[in-house]
Amino acid sequence: MKKINAAIIGYGNIGKYVLEAIISSPDFQVAGIVRRNPDNIPSELKDYKVVASVKDLKDVDVAVLCTPTRSVEEYAKECLALGINTVDSFDIHGGIVELRHNLDKTAKEYKAVSVISAGWDPGTDSMIRSMFEFMAPKGVTYTNFGPGMSMGHTVAVKAIKGVKAALSMTIPLGTSIHRRMVYIEVEEGHKFEDVAKAIKTDDYFAHDETHVTQVESVDALKDMGHGVNMVRKGVSGNTQNQLLEFDMKINNPALTAQVLVASARASLRQSPGAYTMIEIPIIDYIYGDKEALIKKLV
Amino acid sequence: MKKINAAIIGYGNIGKYVLEAIISSPDFQVAGIVRRNPDNIPSELKDYKVVASVKDLKDVDVAVLCTPTRSVEEYAKECLALGINTVDSFDIHGGIVELRHNLDKTAKEYKAVSVISAGWDPGTDSMIRSMFEFMAPKGVTYTNFGPGMSMGHTVAVKAIKGVKAALSMTIPLGTSIHRRMVYIEVEEGHKFEDVAKAIKTDDYFAHDETHVTQVESVDALKDMGHGVNMVRKGVSGNTQNQLLEFDMKINNPALTAQVLVASARASLRQSPGAYTMIEIPIIDYIYGDKEALIKKLV
Repeated sequence: MKKINAAIIGYGNIGKYVLEAIISSPDFQVAGIVRRNPDNIPSELKDYKVVASVKDLKDVDVAVLCTPTRSVEEYAKECLALGINTVDSFDIHGGIVELRHNLDKTAKEYKAVSVISAGWDPGTDSMIRSMFEFMAPKGVTYTNFGPGMSMGHTVAVKAIKGVKAALSMTIPLGTSIHRRMVYIEVEEGHKFEDVAKAIKTDDYFAHDETHVTQVESVDALKDMGHGVNMVRKGVSGNTQNQLLEFDMKINNPALTAQVLVASARASLRQSPGAYTMIEIPIIDYIYGDKEALIKKLV
Repeated sequence: MKKINAAIIGYGNIGKYVLEAIISSPDFQVAGIVRRNPDNIPSELKDYKVVASVKDLKDVDVAVLCTPTRSVEEYAKECLALGINTVDSFDIHGGIVELRHNLDKTAKEYKAVSVISAGWDPGTDSMIRSMFEFMAPKGVTYTNFGPGMSMGHTVAVKAIKGVKAALSMTIPLGTSIHRRMVYIEVEEGHKFEDVAKAIKTDDYFAHDETHVTQVESVDALKDMGHGVNMVRKGVSGNTQNQLLEFDMKINNPALTAQVLVASARASLRQSPGAYTMIEIPIIDYIYGDKEALIKKLV
């Protein structure tokens, strides 16, 4: 069997987990890792090619983009223009339609495939939300996140004056309402009360119940666990009160990485273009023989 | 907008709910209902064409098969040979691969599409099981059914000598282990103890914890509610203990009917051939504009 030759672009938190997911997938092999500074090689990468550009790697089938969300489009276009498929976990919900539109053009031009927003939300949560929609077309779906660290909110806290280190935990209160538990170290020369007030009035937090706590060490609180609870009470035909629920408690970067690798596999089974996860048959994400999978899973 | 013209083949319990689901779907219209005895017309069908054969209906886009599972293949082939798409909720897990193989041939020959085993298990449960598989490729998924009436087990009880009426309830005990609560009316001239023993030693029940209770009226116990709980504890990459769970409490025929109608819609968006639900992009099951759906759901 010819293995799927996958490059990892960016080797931060997600990149590390993507490497593990690729190694544990029987149909994949590591083409190499692309880093801004390819001379800084951690010990676990000593067996792999570490390069500064995807152009320095040979016969890459698919590039798994583990860069910050805002760089996704640029890196994706570079890979696609080389005829290399891409997957990313672009997570700005409001920008997905535009990203898909832009990458679709490049992908079709160079006969490649791009799977975008392939994480868990957007990503697998989107798939379940979409299933709930056709199972009970009338009704409301609530997506409840946490308990778990919110990357976006943590970054927002860090940007506030007087904050030395921060962590924002998302606590689900049901019906898509969330509490923000913010833990901060305060910079010398700043008063905790002032900083706390600035956080609570920041637009990121002003609309949610927010509690700010001063701690000695933010690092001591860090835990990559996260969760989701999605519920829909809806109507099938004329029948009310159809109750659907999805729940998960997961290691956040590990699940994101595994979904990226599954999407990399799926990318090789699509026609040229850009796709969100709900546009690809579920079976295409899974390793194995089609009829055997149908026999086992359907 | 040209509406999807759907025929309902068979007007039993599922057929009735399919009619409701079609009426409540903005993109569908009723082409007609096919019944063995088309002169027996219940009042709710007075506005529709009721005929003895799908050949008596015009311009049918898709036929929703609401016949017993064992007649699915025959009816599907008849429709496909007329160039009419079909959907069914064929539910014999061991026969799905073969049915798909057989209908695929006919569908391709007549340039039609058949979506098979489109209910909730097999069906939407299969989709979620398959998602769990790629989200955490190592691990075990348990599918726990109920509490709810099992059609298959009820039929098995009815076949036993001395049983006048029966209902078999499935009670989930976790890890795919089920208790069978069997309620029966006993035929005159038979002893309850003998009938109960025959049920418990029947191959359908011998391997599960089974309790048989004699009741005055089985009909008084009937409730179409059902449930599923699916859990997977698995591994993403090298990360253990990823916990995934799906839960639903639903009206059984109403959900089956709604899934059939969603699959009828999806059938019109596929190339000729036969498909299980995991082989079709989720977005194809949903009514609406593609980009608007991506914006709303991803």
